[in-house]
This record gives sequence, C-alpha cells and structure tokens, in this order.
Amino acid sequence: MGDLVGQAVVGTLYYIPYSEFQRVCALNVPSERRAAIFADMCRLNALYMIARAGSGHIGSSFSSLDIMSWLLLEEVQGGDVFFSSKGHDAPGYYSVLIGLGKLDFELKHKLRKIDGLPGHPDIGTPGIVTNTGSLGMGISKAKGMVLANRIANRPGRVFVMTGDGELQEGQFWESLISAVNFGLHEITAIIDHNKLQSDTFVKNVSDLGDLEAKLRAFGWRVERCNGNDIGAFAATLAALKGETRPKIIIADTVKGKGVSFMEHTSLDSDVAMYRFHSGAPDASSYRLAAQEIMERLQNRLHEAGSAALEFEKVEREATTPPPATAQRLIAAYSRALLEQAEKHPNLVALDADLVLDTGLIPFRDKYPERFIECGIAEQDMVSMAGGMALNGMLPVVHSFACFLSARPNEQIYNNATEKTKIIYVGSLAGVVPGGPGHSHQAVRDISALAAIPGLTLVEPSCEAEVGLLLDWCINEAPGSCYIRLVSLPWEIPYQLPEDYRPKYGQGVTLVEGTDVAIIAYGPVLLSAAVQAAGILVKEKNLGVKVINLPWLNIVDSNWLKTTIGSCKHVLCLDNHYVIGGQGEVLSRTMVQWGSQHARVHHLGLKEVPPSGTNPEVLSRIRLDAGAIVEIIEKELNR
Amino acid sequence: MGDLVGQAVVGTLYYIPYSEFQRVCALNVPSERRAAIFADMCRLNALYMIARAGSGHIGSSFSSLDIMSWLLLEEVQGGDVFFSSKGHDAPGYYSVLIGLGKLDFELKHKLRKIDGLPGHPDIGTPGIVTNTGSLGMGISKAKGMVLANRIANRPGRVFVMTGDGELQEGQFWESLISAVNFGLHEITAIIDHNKLQSDTFVKNVSDLGDLEAKLRAFGWRVERCNGNDIGAFAATLAALKGETRPKIIIADTVKGKGVSFMEHTSLDSDVAMYRFHSGAPDASSYRLAAQEIMERLQNRLHEAGSAALEFEKVEREATTPPPATAQRLIAAYSRALLEQAEKHPNLVALDADLVLDTGLIPFRDKYPERFIECGIAEQDMVSMAGGMALNGMLPVVHSFACFLSARPNEQIYNNATEKTKIIYVGSLAGVVPGGPGHSHQAVRDISALAAIPGLTLVEPSCEAEVGLLLDWCINEAPGSCYIRLVSLPWEIPYQLPEDYRPKYGQGVTLVEGTDVAIIAYGPVLLSAAVQAAGILVKEKNLGVKVINLPWLNIVDSNWLKTTIGSCKHVLCLDNHYVIGGQGEVLSRTMVQWGSQHARVHHLGLKEVPPSGTNPEVLSRIRLDAGAIVEIIEKELNR
Repeated sequence: MGDLVGQAVVGTLYYIPYSEFQRVCALNVPSERRAAIFADMCRLNALYMIARAGSGHIGSSFSSLDIMSWLLLEEVQGGDVFFSSKGHDAPGYYSVLIGLGKLDFELKHKLRKIDGLPGHPDIGTPGIVTNTGSLGMGISKAKGMVLANRIANRPGRVFVMTGDGELQEGQFWESLISAVNFGLHEITAIIDHNKLQSDTFVKNVSDLGDLEAKLRAFGWRVERCNGNDIGAFAATLAALKGETRPKIIIADTVKGKGVSFMEHTSLDSDVAMYRFHSGAPDASSYRLAAQEIMERLQNRLHEAGSAALEFEKVEREATTPPPATAQRLIAAYSRALLEQAEKHPNLVALDADLVLDTGLIPFRDKYPERFIECGIAEQDMVSMAGGMALNGMLPVVHSFACFLSARPNEQIYNNATEKTKIIYVGSLAGVVPGGPGHSHQAVRDISALAAIPGLTLVEPSCEAEVGLLLDWCINEAPGSCYIRLVSLPWEIPYQLPEDYRPKYGQGVTLVEGTDVAIIAYGPVLLSAAVQAAGILVKEKNLGVKVINLPWLNIVDSNWLKTTIGSCKHVLCLDNHYVIGGQGEVLSRTMVQWGSQHARVHHLGLKEVPPSGTNPEVLSRIRLDAGAIVEIIEKELNR
Repeated sequence: MGDLVGQAVVGTLYYIPYSEFQRVCALNVPSERRAAIFADMCRLNALYMIARAGSGHIGSSFSSLDIMSWLLLEEVQGGDVFFSSKGHDAPGYYSVLIGLGKLDFELKHKLRKIDGLPGHPDIGTPGIVTNTGSLGMGISKAKGMVLANRIANRPGRVFVMTGDGELQEGQFWESLISAVNFGLHEITAIIDHNKLQSDTFVKNVSDLGDLEAKLRAFGWRVERCNGNDIGAFAATLAALKGETRPKIIIADTVKGKGVSFMEHTSLDSDVAMYRFHSGAPDASSYRLAAQEIMERLQNRLHEAGSAALEFEKVEREATTPPPATAQRLIAAYSRALLEQAEKHPNLVALDADLVLDTGLIPFRDKYPERFIECGIAEQDMVSMAGGMALNGMLPVVHSFACFLSARPNEQIYNNATEKTKIIYVGSLAGVVPGGPGHSHQAVRDISALAAIPGLTLVEPSCEAEVGLLLDWCINEAPGSCYIRLVSLPWEIPYQLPEDYRPKYGQGVTLVEGTDVAIIAYGPVLLSAAVQAAGILVKEKNLGVKVINLPWLNIVDSNWLKTTIGSCKHVLCLDNHYVIGGQGEVLSRTMVQWGSQHARVHHLGLKEVPPSGTNPEVLSRIRLDAGAIVEIIEKELNR
C-alpha cells in the first residue's frame, strides 16, 4: 500500500471499485467498524468525484459521511427514506449509493457532467428521493412524506439531514412547529453540525445560540452526539426508539473530517477562511488527501484481518483555467462598489453568507461598519434593507440570483411598495455554471422580479459595463434596481464603444448588419451571438446585427424600432426561460407598433436546465453559437 | 348619556371628535387611567371606521388598542418609532393617530376609500413608518431601522407589534437570530397575544407551544403581561429599561377587547368560529357594541370628574349587497373540489389559515383526514405538498394569491423541478377588492409564477368555468397548475356556451365582432369588456369581439390567429401588472408570426394599485368599461 501511495503523482486520481465495497460490506466485524471503513472508502471516492469534476463540496461531504454510511447500511430499510436537505453533500451521498450498488458505478466518473450526477441532488438520480440545494426545505418535505404515508396507511420513517448554517433559514423553524402538532415521530432530523457555513464559522456569520434549548423549546425530542463517532451516533439513534415526538439529533461533526489538513479544527484561528468548502482541491492537496485516506483504509483493513484494498486509478483530464483576458464581472463589481461607497456614505452592503461569491470582501474589509452579514436568511436580509432604506441608507443587497429573486420575493415587493431605493445584486445569474444544477441556475429571476413597480432590471455584458450600470443604478435610477451578474469568467469577442454610457431602455450595437438583428444581454449569450454573426457573414454572407440591451424589463420603443431598422428577422436571446424573459418585454413593445414586419424568434430555456459542464449545458439547451446559426438559417428558409 | 345611547338606532354611526380627545389628553388623572379612556375612545372610532367602510378588522384592533394608546401617549418620543407588523389593526392605529392629531381627522370617514386610509398600513399615510399587511416582516424591518440609526449616529428606539398567528411565519424566527448577534436592544417587540388568528384559536391552527421558552432560547429578553391592563403593560416596559438584549413582551390580550360579545373569551367553545375577525358588524351588533363602549366611556369620564363626552353621529350610507345572481367563484370552487375529492382518494387539501376565504370548509368537514391545516406558514405548506406529491398524493394548496405566489415562490419552483403534480389555488386574485390595499391585491402572481416549467396558470371567468378548469387541472393537465380565483361576488353580463370545455391554450368568444378584439380573463375584466363592447356597438357601430382566454401563460398560436381574424386592433386586458401578464404571452406569440397587422394595446396595472372601494380602484387604474371605451376610441383614431 505504501508503494501505491508513493506513486501518487499530480494528475493521478484514485477510487475504489464496487467489488471492494461488496467485500467490505461482507466483512465479519462489528457493524460500527464496518460502517466506519465504508465511510472512509466513500471519502476517497467522493474526493475522486470532486477532483475529476473540478468542483464540488468536500468539507460538507466529509463531515456527514459517517452518519450517512451508518444510516444507509444499518438503519434505513423497507419504506424508510433518507435524504439530505444540505445539498452540498451530494458527492458524499452519491458515493454511499454507489458503494451500496444502488447507483450505477460508472456514474462516479460523471459528477457535474451532463446525463451524469448533478451538482445538487435531483430525483432523476436513483436513490435520491427529493430535490435539494436551496436550503431549509428538508423538514417540510419530510413532513409531507410522512403525512402521505399515514393517509395511505403505509409505514415508513424519514431521516433528513440538515446543515447548521441552514438553520438560519426561517423555513427551518417554520417547519418545526406543525411537526410537533401533528406528532410526526416518524421523522428523525440530523443536524450535521460541522460549525462552518460556506467559508467561515457559523458563529461568525450569524450565531445560532443555544441550539439545544431552541429545538427543545419547539417541542422536539433533542439528542446530541459526536456525528463522526459511528458508535455514538448509533447509540443515539437507538435511544430514540419509541419516542413519540419528532426527533432531532445535533450531530457534532468536523468539516472536512478524515483528512487532517482539511478538518476545520486544523484552522489556526476562527476567523481564517476555510479552503475546502467548495471547488476542487489543487493537485498537491488532492495527492496528500488521497494518500492519508488510503493509508488509513489499509490500516483499517489490516486491523480487520482482511486483505488490502485495491484502488483503481485514472489520469486527471487536463482542464484549462479561464484565460487572464476573460471578463470577471464579480471582481469588476467589487471595484465598482468600492468606488460608489466612497461617494455615498449612506451606502450599506448586506450579504447572505456569500461574501466571497458576491465580491463583497473588499467592501467588508474597507467599510466594516457599513457591512451587514445577515447569514442564510434572505427574507430577513431584504426586509432589513427595507428598514434601512426607510431610515436614509442606500442598501445594496447581495445573494445568488436564484435565491435573491425567489426566496424573499414578497419582501422585495413589500419594499417596492414603500418606494424607497434599494439595489439588489444577484450573482451566479443564468444557466452557467451548469455544474451546480437547477437549484443554483438562476433562469427565472427576471420573470420573478420584472413586474415589481419601479424596479429596473439590468445585466452588464462585460467588466466595463458593470461599473457603468452600478453607477446608473445608484446615481440616476429613479427607483430600486436589480443587477444581474454572470459569475463565470468569460472571454468575450466584443468591446463596448469607448464613449458608451447606459441610456435608459436603449442598447448598443456590437456588430453591424442589416438582415437579422440579435438582441441579447450578458457575456455568455452576447459572445455566442457575436460568434454566430461571424459565422453567418462568412459562410452565408448574411449581415447579422448584434445588440447588447442591458435593460431586462424595459425598452425604449423608438430606439428599438430604429435599431431593428430593415432587418427582416429579430432573434431575442434569453439566458433565462423564454417566458418572462427580456424577449417577452421586447415583444410587447413591438406588437404595439402594429404592422411591424420583422419576424421575431425567441431563444431561451423552456424546461428545467440540466446539470453539466458549461459547454455541455449550453449545447444541450441550444444556447450556443452553433444553435444560433442553425435557428437563423431555419428562420430565413421558412 | 343614557339618552344618547338610547337613541342609537340601526343606521346611525357614532364617533368622537378631535376636540374631545384633546380634552381627555389634558385630563388630570394618572396616565394609565387617561390612556385607558383614550384607548376606549379609539375603540369607538375604530368601530365607526370599520362600520362605515363596510370592512376591516375589529378583533385585532380592539385587542391591541390599550398597548398602542399607551405607547403613543407616553412612550414613543423623539427618534422613537412604533409600527405594527400585524397590519390588521390599522383601524385601531389610525384612530390613535387621529386622536393624537397626527392624522387629519377627516380621514376617519375614509377608511378603505380612495385617497383615504388604506386597509393595511402604507407609508403614504402620515404616522405610518413602514408598509405591513403581509406577515412576519416586522422585526426584520425594525432591525434595519435600528442599524441605520446606529450608522447615522442617531438615537431612536423601535417598538414593533406582531400578531400571534404571525409567529407561525418562518421569517419571524429568522429575524430573531441576528437581532441578538447585533445586540439590538433598541428594539422592543410586543406580541399581541390575543390567542386567535383569522377565525379560530391559534392553538387549533398550529399551536405555538411554549412561547416564552422559545423566545428565551433565541436569546431575547422576554417578559409577559396582560396587554389589556395598561398599568401592567407600563410596568413591564419600565422593567425592561436598561436591558442590553433585544426585548420582547408577550402581551396577553383578548381579541375584540372592550365589547363583551366581541371578546373571544365569550365564545362558548374553543372550536367555535369567531365572528369579528374581519368584515363590518351588522347593524344590530354595531348598535350594541357602540352602546357598550359609549356607556363605559361616560362612566369613566364621570369617575374622572369630567364632563360627559360629546359624540358625533352620522347616518350609515346605504350599501347594496351583491345580488343573488352574482357569480361566487369561491363557493363554486368549494363544490368542485368536493366532486374531485370524491373521485380521487389521493387528493389532499392544504390550507394556510384561510379555510373560510379559500372555500375549504366543506372539504375539511367531509374529509378531515385529508385536510392539512398548515397555519400561516406558506413556505412550509408548499414544501410539505412537495413531499406529499412525491409520496403519491395529489396536493391542492391554498392561500391568497398575493401570498401563495410570492412567499413560497422558490418552494413552488423546487417542487416543479421534481415534476410531480400539485395544484395551487390562489384566491383573492386581482386588483379588487380594493379595500385591503396592496399587500392583498394580487396583481403580480402571474408574473411571479409564469416561468415555472410545467406550471399551467388558469383563471375561470364564472362559476361554471371553475369546475371545468379544476377538472382539467386534475384530470388532464400534464403537470402542475395554478388556479387564480377572483373572490369577490361579481355580476357578469355573459355566459359560456352550453357545450364549452376548456381547450389547452384556446379561449372562447363571448361577444362577436370584427373590428376590435379584446382578450381578457376572469369575471371583473371580462364584464368590463362586454359592457364596453355593448357601448361601442351602440354608440359607434363598432364590432368588438370579446374573448375569454382562461390560460394565463400559454396560448395556442393558430387559435389566436384565427380568432383575431381581420380585427385591426387587439386589446389585451390584465387584472395584473402589464409586465408579466397574459398580454405579454400573447405578444410573444404574435410577433413570431411576423407581418401581423393588428395593432396591440395592453391595459393593466403599471403602478402599485391604490386602496379604495372597488369602483374607485377600477376607475382610478382605468380598468373599467369607460376606460376601455376611451382607449379603443383613441386607438382607432391614432
């Protein structure tokens, strides 16, 4: 075994084949010990999946693997189900399912790839009983499952795992209340209390206080144990047998458990950033981590009097990082926000536990007194922003677009009825990155927010436009705004004119042409449009005009008419569902002209998007240059 | 005084003029006693406002008036603010503001009238600091206000009142967490714990359990007192001085306090329906209630050694109840649901504390085991429905359209990604009734839900169509559906053809015509359209075709083309914001035809709608027959 590990080199990835899981499952050792070995095997495989995929959540998978392994090996049976409300632990859970033969082994190689295993759980995958990834819904769903079982007179318990950061979501507490009133003892909730959320400690984000007292006060039976000690966890479960109240176990775990330097307890201070929340490990971290797990496994097998494990290996596929020239909208946003903050002493920034992803670290560090960390509590955050705006502040509210547009949807409307000014900034907008899957692909945010009176929705196409639009929103917009940001670094084949300034409802032509007009927004689709225009002019001698229209829910009718000019075809591209996207706003304006002669086509999403690599997803949903070329050719021949 | 009360007759309404409030405020009696008299005076005036308006919330206003009076008379000063998160107690609060001279006395006569006092609080009214009416946002807003004060280095405390049913909302618990972390001692929350929500006891809807223990566990300083005993309440407030944690007072109150037969404690059982939650008292209840309050007031003044109060009186305006022939969609829905429930043993109905308003009482009584009362917990309800659908049930989920479409917006999307079948039923849809104001006017629900893949949105135009569409949703729809229901009884000047059956994406012509086509949905706008068509044919000899299109987010393109036929103008009516409404879906379809010749006009909301009587609101926002006539004439002359 030392040999094999010694051979581990940058680029080699290790995993454990199904036959070895079968062998370990048959080992004649105490069940707790078997489960601990099984869990460690799953750690290596989860690490493999994440390294190969290039992204995924190690820390959350590792902290929960002992619990999941025990539950699936020994506890969940018959009509029982287990699911995790966390979502982030999907690679861990997939590894358990694969180790148990409940999921095709070959899927192990297809995490976050199309037709493979989605970044967050989806019931399209065998063994997944409900879709999770947006936090706080788990216990509610468990309650529904149990009530349905009761009505159908079916037995069946539900084991539902939650995160600890997740407990900041109001729905978690909302869901506790009626579980007690209905007496849903079939539910056992397990809090994977690994103390960290995203990249830092829960207590630094929004301290949960006396968790046991809270849960007890809500009327649940509460137990607490070490969730990485399988014996202790099993004993706790056993102690809950016969309990007639719904049950909850606070399982104290270590984030990154099983790899010394990935364990959160190895952080040298509680303000340090934890590096293994999301994303793939670098080559050297991977090698060290795999080595540590493999060595421990071989020792464990040896102690169990069993033959050493056989590891399979594969070379890591070459991945190309985004080029230095790629547009990085989040970084541009960080800079632009600092500039505005300097000019506006009443500008405050609110965050929902995504300080890194939303580009807020520079602001937080420079203006700590104007930075409000709200935790994973979007409703609270948005209503707090409402209160701040009423008292003279200019709140800038941040989260991922998928969550910000939907979770506090009514709170945003309520603020709008007060006619104060608030800037909402939704990052991770659009269908890519495709890896995380539909819980994170924000393709419904325009629709969910467009009708809010006084709210202007904008999306920048490049770094330069980020600052211009933020400036417009803060200094010129009459009311509140929503800024939609693509988070992926993206190389763009166009440039805004030197003297470009955003004009309300008007766009800017990036490529001239007189046959077809493509109207789009954001770097992903505008790049595809410009590429398609290049292909069409070259291959078909077709003049395709490409227009960047950063306004998502308004358009200047005269500008639009002039811009379309004599083009016989208009193609509206939406990095969003077609329903409720920009193309619909454009259509409403165009039909008001009467007798307009351009034929309009809409390209965008019609169904829930798949999880996969970015090119896979864009190709599957037909939102890449090739698809645009094809559509235009087809339209012209109609 | 006996004389005056003796004269109280059906049709006479009593109120107390401002001069009498000034006199009482100057009374040289202990402040608690003065406040109690003041509160009772406000009770009479709130009762007057509600009786005159024909709707409003007596129970919730009366329970909280002692607290509000004390706070506004004695506690709130300088930079301090008070607001109520409940919203329902607006008539009580208006009475306090008016009694204090902070609000124009004449507004007392204009509750729920246009340019008067909205049914739920709006900051357009002096003395109202934030918009409430949708529950659970209060403490979050208070936190924002305090944080803003701190940043601006302004002093100021925030007193925020909440309901008790409101505590079922997750946002309430979500908001408690960071208040403690931020140490927001400037906040004093007061729970008006009147034990009832809507029409029955909180404990019967979704029991709150040990409320004190819960709040303490969340780290707040908790006190409890009799909220209708001003001395006790004042002493409790005094005891909290100097506390460095955020503070919360559980104020035990009596719903309907101050009128013996309106007090919830007079109910003869805890399963009885409480009659004074919403709506105006009938003439005899009004007379008895007014008499009781007036007698007590005169006694109190007498005891205080002061002259008797002068009451003003006014004759109640005649109101015409909706005619027996009016279409009652909620009642039709109740019947249709029972029919479907009989055929589908897996049909379950979920309610969020609106069992009466959503028409669920017949279902609950007939199928108690298939009825799930979720409390004011829409997120939890929708995710529970998701869990039930995954386990083979057919959940039908109910709330007001304004809440159902927005509050659990992400949970509905999450369910949709699971591709199970769930029926959502949003009542109180559209801009009328106009009395409750924008928190309850559901005019953004189509937009908020339209893009959810697989979700079909429908709205019936009359009783007959309710059953047909529910039948379609349950037995024919491929996926989930949202049924949008106008709750107001409405007289309609049209009838569906005898053999009418809903056809996916297709509508039905109610009035024939070849010059202009009006496409609309629902009883309110279709009635206006049919009336307008009648006027136009008579006065202008103009053939106006009126089409009922019950499908809100899809349309059959060929049907639409054929139906519009040679009409030169198309008018799309939306009982909704124009953005994201049905008219936008129609536009997207029409522009795809290219060279279409009809000019399309959209009529719907562009701004937050006002509160007022139904005719006032429809006229102000220009969605009545007169406005339609005018628009069409203008369009024709363009």
